[in-house]
Parts: sequence; structure tokens; C-alpha cells
Amino acid sequence: MKRTTIELADGRELVYFDERDDAVRDQPDRRELPPPPPASQLRYDPLADEWVAVAVHRQTRTFLPPADQCPLCPSTADRLSEIPAPDYDVAVFENRFPSLSQRVADEPAEITPFTPVRPGRGRCEVVCFTDDHNASFASLPPRRVRTVLDALADRTTALGELPGVEQVFCFENRGVEIGVTLHHPHGQIYAYPFVTPRTRALLGAARRQRGAHRRRQPLRRRARRRAGRRRPGWSRRTSTGRAYVPAAARWPFEVHVAPHRPVPDIPALSDAERDAFGPLYLDVLRRFDGLFDMPMPYIAAWHQAPVRIDRELGHLHLQLFSIRRAKDKLKYLAGSESGMGVFINDIAPERAAELLRAV
Amino acid sequence: MKRTTIELADGRELVYFDERDDAVRDQPDRRELPPPPPASQLRYDPLADEWVAVAVHRQTRTFLPPADQCPLCPSTADRLSEIPAPDYDVAVFENRFPSLSQRVADEPAEITPFTPVRPGRGRCEVVCFTDDHNASFASLPPRRVRTVLDALADRTTALGELPGVEQVFCFENRGVEIGVTLHHPHGQIYAYPFVTPRTRALLGAARRQRGAHRRRQPLRRRARRRAGRRRPGWSRRTSTGRAYVPAAARWPFEVHVAPHRPVPDIPALSDAERDAFGPLYLDVLRRFDGLFDMPMPYIAAWHQAPVRIDRELGHLHLQLFSIRRAKDKLKYLAGSESGMGVFINDIAPERAAELLRAV
Repeated sequence: MKRTTIELADGRELVYFDERDDAVRDQPDRRELPPPPPASQLRYDPLADEWVAVAVHRQTRTFLPPADQCPLCPSTADRLSEIPAPDYDVAVFENRFPSLSQRVADEPAEITPFTPVRPGRGRCEVVCFTDDHNASFASLPPRRVRTVLDALADRTTALGELPGVEQVFCFENRGVEIGVTLHHPHGQIYAYPFVTPRTRALLGAARRQRGAHRRRQPLRRRARRRAGRRRPGWSRRTSTGRAYVPAAARWPFEVHVAPHRPVPDIPALSDAERDAFGPLYLDVLRRFDGLFDMPMPYIAAWHQAPVRIDRELGHLHLQLFSIRRAKDKLKYLAGSESGMGVFINDIAPERAAELLRAV
Repeated sequence: MKRTTIELADGRELVYFDERDDAVRDQPDRRELPPPPPASQLRYDPLADEWVAVAVHRQTRTFLPPADQCPLCPSTADRLSEIPAPDYDVAVFENRFPSLSQRVADEPAEITPFTPVRPGRGRCEVVCFTDDHNASFASLPPRRVRTVLDALADRTTALGELPGVEQVFCFENRGVEIGVTLHHPHGQIYAYPFVTPRTRALLGAARRQRGAHRRRQPLRRRARRRAGRRRPGWSRRTSTGRAYVPAAARWPFEVHVAPHRPVPDIPALSDAERDAFGPLYLDVLRRFDGLFDMPMPYIAAWHQAPVRIDRELGHLHLQLFSIRRAKDKLKYLAGSESGMGVFINDIAPERAAELLRAV
């Protein structure tokens, strides 16, 4: 894999990850671009002890442009996109409308004495999986999935070294049903300047279980292993990892993909683990799309350990889930989920597993 | 207010709350109904230390019936609905497709040794705000809001006394945009057999702040008070309560309504506090509907203290929020929100406050 870094016209960074070692990526960005907006503001919510990002410049971000104006397609003679090259394998660049950024304006003014405010110091990147506008992650060849994984490993390490970054989150939003604003196959990376609420919850659970079973193997690892063995649902195993429907799935269709070996994050995956991931995950994605014979809207969320703390408690896993619960019905997060955080799953995980197995 | 309890044809309970003390509610339910489904199953997710409800019978629940088949309208000679009376003020009944119920079938079988499973013992109720199918909460007169509040207080107390119930959650989902399946103006009540994840987070934050400021007034109460005084945004005060846009709002449009006096739940509200709530909340709701000159989709979530524990840490407040961020745009919970619990708000709370003020 060849890695080439360039600077876009407004100073943002772009990194090409090429499968051919002789790829030349010297095309300059010929656009005139205004400077990128400054980082958004983080506000502390004392009621929940959580940070919320207020990113006002995003309200006007690019929204479902026609295919011939796609900013993630390669540039052509006629049309300059975010990616100057005429083709690419995987390209990663700083989001033009970032929620989090290293470009920090003045310290924001205090709002109230009990609402601390600070700049949204971090980074948001866009990960283009292919230069083919009409592809999808599920249609990528395994080799490309490996390149994507290597790119995510590279970015996880690089962003984790930026000042203030505490957690790196790689994810893909797919489908207008969950609010995707660009159709070109792409993922995103958020480098947060705090450990996220969800990760804090997972780490807290792991810590309590470790405390309760100090002399034994951590409960959650055992739980996963036994669950994989004993659950009658759908699971697939390779020599290095597994994909399975969790017994307490929150979402109508949810699959976790994890290596057998507990590792904190993507950079810690071995060569063999990275190679085995593609075929396993592609099989899951194709089953998702086959469930209702339509492209399945989904979120694919890489849970990684924080950058600095609790590295031994956070175990890498990819959580893939969809809000589609039937051909013509979506799962909405209404009162119980959005208000209280209690998920009501209308599809038994065993049933979802059966449906996935049958595809 | 007159309170009349009857039993529906399948044994479910219905309670009328009438504003006239001479209301007679002796109409029997003449339908033939199958027995209600048993409680759903709760599954423990060891990764997050949270319970998830699996309610498979809900997948086939009533979905957007035509107005002349509305199950929440009063019964007529031709058509029997969930409510036998020919008219009503406020009626509350057990949900026919409940996620949680006291009708517990056999103990569910173990799935894996580390996925404890138990019956979803609790209760789900439907709260009909008016017999007028085409009304909305915002169009209710203040007196009716008081009746609704009294009904919620009654139910909070009653459900809190049921075996196993740990928390009572009253809420309203409004609008197809957030998945409402019945248009008739109604709310819901979930009586959970555990303290919900969101409430645990709020209680945890309050406990940490109380620990850090043991000899002082709890931080969160002060924070709220100062925030109300100093924030330049929108707020309304009455002698007993206030409504305000929180400085760290998660949602594009979010308003909290709370009494000045910290109380754990709705039953603890005084007569004066209950009377003052209606005009205040109705003003907020009408501003919501005026923002884009269209009925605003929203979730109204009553945060109450748990039934048995931490009564002194949990303070009653109503969190009203919408996913509509522009006339033609919704806020989606994508990777950052659904995967990591980090909210990115595209509208500055001050701006939302300005827009609400201008309505």
C-alpha cells in the first residue's frame, strides 16, 4: 500500500491510500476555496455530565447533490471535486464542514457559570471507499476492504496523536433513511476530545464486571465466547474473528463483528486478522442487503478503546445495525429510546438471525 | 375531578378522568377480544450493563389506521373502540400491545449463561388527552392540561406501587416523523422494572456533583437557576415554574419545563404548580407549531425520580424536543449520536431560543 499526503486548496489534508505501490498522486487542488470554518463549540451539560457539540456552520452543508456534482468523485477536466486525482482507491480528507477541528478560533465566551464551554478541538475526516460513485461497501472486493481497514488503522493512530484527542471513532452511515447527505460510498472518522458517553458506559460495565470477577477471566469476554457457542442464532466464525447477532440486540437487525483476540483498536489488529475481516464483513453486508431485496440503511460503528485511558478495558468490535424492521417499516427512536435510553426491539434477535441465515 | 375505573373485554384496565363530578361511565366494553399478549422479554446486555426489551408481538401492532377506525376515539353505535364511552375527557388504559406488562407468562428460558433474561414485568398505558380526534395537545384548554397532569400523577403513583416497578415514565410522541402510529392525541406511560439508562446517567451526574459540593446547594439546581437568569435565550417564568432552552441542548429545538421547587415527580407537584403548568407549556407547544407553520413532530419526556431509590437526586422536569431542524430537514441520529451518544446540534441553542421568541 502506498500512502500519499497532499494539501487541499484551503489547507485541509488529504491522504491517498493506493493499492499499487507505483501510484503517483501529484495533482494539485485547483479550486479557489474559502478557509475552512473553525471548530464548533462544545458545551457541557451538567445534568448529564456530557458534552454536546454545537456546529452551526453545518446547517448549510452539502445536501444530496446530483451525481454529476458529487464532491467525493475524482476530479475531471470539467469539474473539480474534493479529490484532485482522476481516480483513486481509498482517499481520506478532512471534512469541509467539520463538527470537530484543530482550527480553533478564540476561546468561546462563557454562557453561564455552570455551562463550561470549550472549542471542539478534534478532527472530522471523510473516508472514500472507492472512486465508483455507484458502488457500495458491500460491493467492494475483499482486497479493497483490507485497504480501507489499513486506512482506518493509519487514521486512528494519526488522529490519536493530535493534541487533545481522547477517542477516535470510525463509522459509516448508509442510506437516506438515516440522514446520509452524500450517496458516494464513504465513511467518516470523528476524533473526539473526550471519551464518548457510549464508550464510558461500556467501560463502566467492563470495570464493574472486572471488579466482581477479579481473579477470573473478564466476564464480558467469556460472555461473548459462550454466547457465540451456545446461541441458536446466526453467527459466522473464521480462524481469527466472528460475526454474530447479539442475544440482547437493541436494533431490529444488528450484527457485531469482533476478533477472537481482545484488542483495543484497529491498529492493534494483526495482518491475518485484517485479511480475514473483509470476507466475513462482506458476507454480513450482503445478507443485510438481501433481507428485503433493497439496499439496507445502516450504521456501522467501530467501537475502539480510548486513546489514553482504559486501553485494557475497551475491546474492538464493529457494531452494524439497521433501523429497517420490515420492507415498509422503520424503527423510530421515540420516547422510550430517545427519552430514557431503553430500547424496545420488535424483532427477536433469534428471528433476525434466522432471517439473516436464510438470505 | 372524577375517577372511574372499568375493565375492558380482555381484562385490561381503563380509567376515566372526568372534569365533571357527575360523569357516569358505566358503558361496558362489548367487543370480543383475545387475551392480551404476555409481557415481552427483558434481556441483559453485559457489554453495556443495560436491559433491552424484546417485544415481538408489537411488530404487528395497529399502524396508522384511517380516522374512522381510530381505536382511541369514543365508541359509537356502529363502531366499538378501546373506549366504551360515547365521549370522554381524559382516558387511560393498558396498551393492547404492551412492551411491559404484569401478565407474565412462564419464566423465559436462559439464552446464554451471561445473557440473563427475565419477563418484562411492568406496565404500558395509553393516555388519551381528548376525545377529539383532530385536536392536538397544543390545542387543549388549560383546564384539560390540568386534568391530564392529574391523571399522570394518579398513574405515576398507581404504577409505582405495582410489583417490581422501579421507574414510571410519562411521555408523548407526536408526528409520523418520529414514528407515531396513531394520530389521535395521546401520550403513553411506561412503568419499567429497572431504572433506565438515561435516568441512571442523570442520577450519576447529580451524585458526583453532590459529592463535590457536599456543603453547598447541589450544583445542578444552581446551574439551572443561574442559567435561567443569565442566558440570553428564550425562557418564560411563572411564579411556580419556568420553561427555557438549555444552554447545552442536544436537539435542534429543545425546551425544558420545570418547577422552581425541586420535586421528585408529578405526584409531588402542588396544586398551584399544577395549575401554572398548563399555560406555560401550551405557550411553548404553540411556539413549536409556529416555528415552521406546520405541526411540529416532538417527543415530550417527563423525567421523574425512580420509585424507590435516589428520590432526592432526581428532579422532575419535562424535556420537550423535536427532530425538525428546518422546514424541509430533519435531524437524524446517525453515527455520532446512535453509535457514541455524542450529539451534534446544528442549531445554536441561542438561535433556537430567538426563533421561539419570535413566534
